[in-house]
Amino acid sequence: MARLSTRTGDLHASPVREMLSIAQRPGVISFAGGLPSPESFAGLDLPPPPRELLQYGPTEGEPELRAKIAGELSALGIDSAPDRVLILSGSQQGIDLAAKLVVDPGAVVAVESPAYLAALQVFRFFGARFEILDRTDPAATWDAAPPAMAYVTPTFQNPTGGCWSATERRALAQACDAHDVILFEDDPYRDLVYEPCERRPVCAEVKSASWIYQGSFSKTVAPGLRLGFLTASEDIFPLLVRLKQAADLHTNRLSQWMVLQYLNDPDRAARMERVAALYREKRDVFDEALTRHLGDLATWTVPPGGLFFWVTLGGAMDPETLLKKALERGVLFTPGSHFLAEGGACPAIRLNFSLATPEDAERGLRTLGEILRG
Amino acid sequence: MARLSTRTGDLHASPVREMLSIAQRPGVISFAGGLPSPESFAGLDLPPPPRELLQYGPTEGEPELRAKIAGELSALGIDSAPDRVLILSGSQQGIDLAAKLVVDPGAVVAVESPAYLAALQVFRFFGARFEILDRTDPAATWDAAPPAMAYVTPTFQNPTGGCWSATERRALAQACDAHDVILFEDDPYRDLVYEPCERRPVCAEVKSASWIYQGSFSKTVAPGLRLGFLTASEDIFPLLVRLKQAADLHTNRLSQWMVLQYLNDPDRAARMERVAALYREKRDVFDEALTRHLGDLATWTVPPGGLFFWVTLGGAMDPETLLKKALERGVLFTPGSHFLAEGGACPAIRLNFSLATPEDAERGLRTLGEILRG
Repeated sequence: MARLSTRTGDLHASPVREMLSIAQRPGVISFAGGLPSPESFAGLDLPPPPRELLQYGPTEGEPELRAKIAGELSALGIDSAPDRVLILSGSQQGIDLAAKLVVDPGAVVAVESPAYLAALQVFRFFGARFEILDRTDPAATWDAAPPAMAYVTPTFQNPTGGCWSATERRALAQACDAHDVILFEDDPYRDLVYEPCERRPVCAEVKSASWIYQGSFSKTVAPGLRLGFLTASEDIFPLLVRLKQAADLHTNRLSQWMVLQYLNDPDRAARMERVAALYREKRDVFDEALTRHLGDLATWTVPPGGLFFWVTLGGAMDPETLLKKALERGVLFTPGSHFLAEGGACPAIRLNFSLATPEDAERGLRTLGEILRG
Repeated sequence: MARLSTRTGDLHASPVREMLSIAQRPGVISFAGGLPSPESFAGLDLPPPPRELLQYGPTEGEPELRAKIAGELSALGIDSAPDRVLILSGSQQGIDLAAKLVVDPGAVVAVESPAYLAALQVFRFFGARFEILDRTDPAATWDAAPPAMAYVTPTFQNPTGGCWSATERRALAQACDAHDVILFEDDPYRDLVYEPCERRPVCAEVKSASWIYQGSFSKTVAPGLRLGFLTASEDIFPLLVRLKQAADLHTNRLSQWMVLQYLNDPDRAARMERVAALYREKRDVFDEALTRHLGDLATWTVPPGGLFFWVTLGGAMDPETLLKKALERGVLFTPGSHFLAEGGACPAIRLNFSLATPEDAERGLRTLGEILRG
């Protein structure tokens, strides 16, 4: 028997992976993943990329793309600069790099609960213990023992779709400053905005703590390109670059060039408005179908942005049982328990509304309603 | 001061990184990196890729590409299959995944010395201790305490350019089988072959041990696409897929599609012959210039493949002093000590011959000779 690292003990077959393989069967309606609508993708009608991009490139990324991103981050109030932007092979990679930077076995990471499950998995894999963040009083327990890092998705959070208030954002920034806690803000959904909503980055409020802010082009350009970015405070940025170099040398240069074309496209703002309108419409259709079929069986808040509804079941059936029965009828979703840092049961389910057609949303939600009614 | 993981103590500013930034200054002649010649790259004149590749894709990679690679690996004698090929964001990523799979702090990894320095860095970063592999008797010390893994680059090794004999390959496979040591074979240079040479993968000889075999398209297609692959024994392959998912979800799909086009290109074999001819010519020109300028000051073996000369200096000057003086005159190389698993001094230097023009090779090597002569 091969001798493997202790961390492989945590590499359970993911229930989500199993579900996603079912999701690919023809005729299955999946609310389980977080796939953007293909209608939202930027097109591929670009001139041929420069041939010199075929050579190895800099670990940090292409200078023009880094400068463009730094300018946009500065406009959000973040203390960024072109030489402090690191291009990532998708923002999942930023989570891996941050975990490597911070997490020794037993290190405490403060997280929301529920939180993005693939971030929880990575932190757990490196041996993190979790402390659940209280948004109204984040430093409640930090006097005794501050965590090594706070990981948050304050804007259109996955899975809840919610946004932190300005007060909550300031409170977290101040808590991190006061206790020297690294703030890691994950912000992949900020441009998928359907109603006015507080979106000022928490990192823009930090004065002295170390911080990492990351974003993604998966939702605004296309996920298949695997392109994200991070910026970080001066003390830790160089370490993240070295971790990136050890992880995959640098990110695909053709993708970087393509994303730069999209960012410089005169039609960009109009395209993002069309994407937001498309998703707003999909969200509203989904909300109406939810009301029709689960209105008396569950509660939810209409998300002001992002890709998900977080729906709390009334108690007639637990989410795992519902999922089992729904799978038999070709409908998938993700049970809320997968997003809990502390583990245990959760009465909620996460429903993705960006991928399904209106007809599939109607049919899938009607099926869930029928099952819940027994 | 932010609380960082203990492993960040190992994130020294890399002397190689510093050198590479100097290498980009105009007029500098660099033998330091491992950059392929741009003349070797496959072209970009491809039809537009299918639009569905813009969506998220499978963690394992595109099915057609996996099948194509599995077929070629089977032809090499490796026990591969399409569902046991994992597409990587460059083969550096395979090293990160293997380290995560195997290396707990204090775990022993058996390596050649010298060995690929970015692999040593990653293993060290995860807390590995190194044992130097004796090619003629790999299991010499394994009865008492076998290592967790053996990492080798038996074909056109970086930095030495050498190839293991058939006997040495069989001995390592048998040692891994007998002591249940995971064999990790890194094979990025196998298609850059200039003279007949033993190239049968060691993994093709393994009977019972766990194993990982990885390859790269950086030298046969283009490095900017960041595309590599691994295949592994059935027991550990699923764990590597989950580690890949946690690292970056999946590899860029457009690159995967592009590489598949190149692999299916009817001109592929002829193109690889042209690439080998180009590099053989560059190697011979480099060898002649070496003989002219360092013939009486150093010794080397002409490499039968790969991208490097490994040149042992006669003792007139140590490589670090030579590098310092060479940098002042705009010439770069990598001192051999960087490749030693055990650390310490090394009288050799690594010279890359694939990038420099014949004129730059001549001028750069003449400069090194002049410095060595005082």
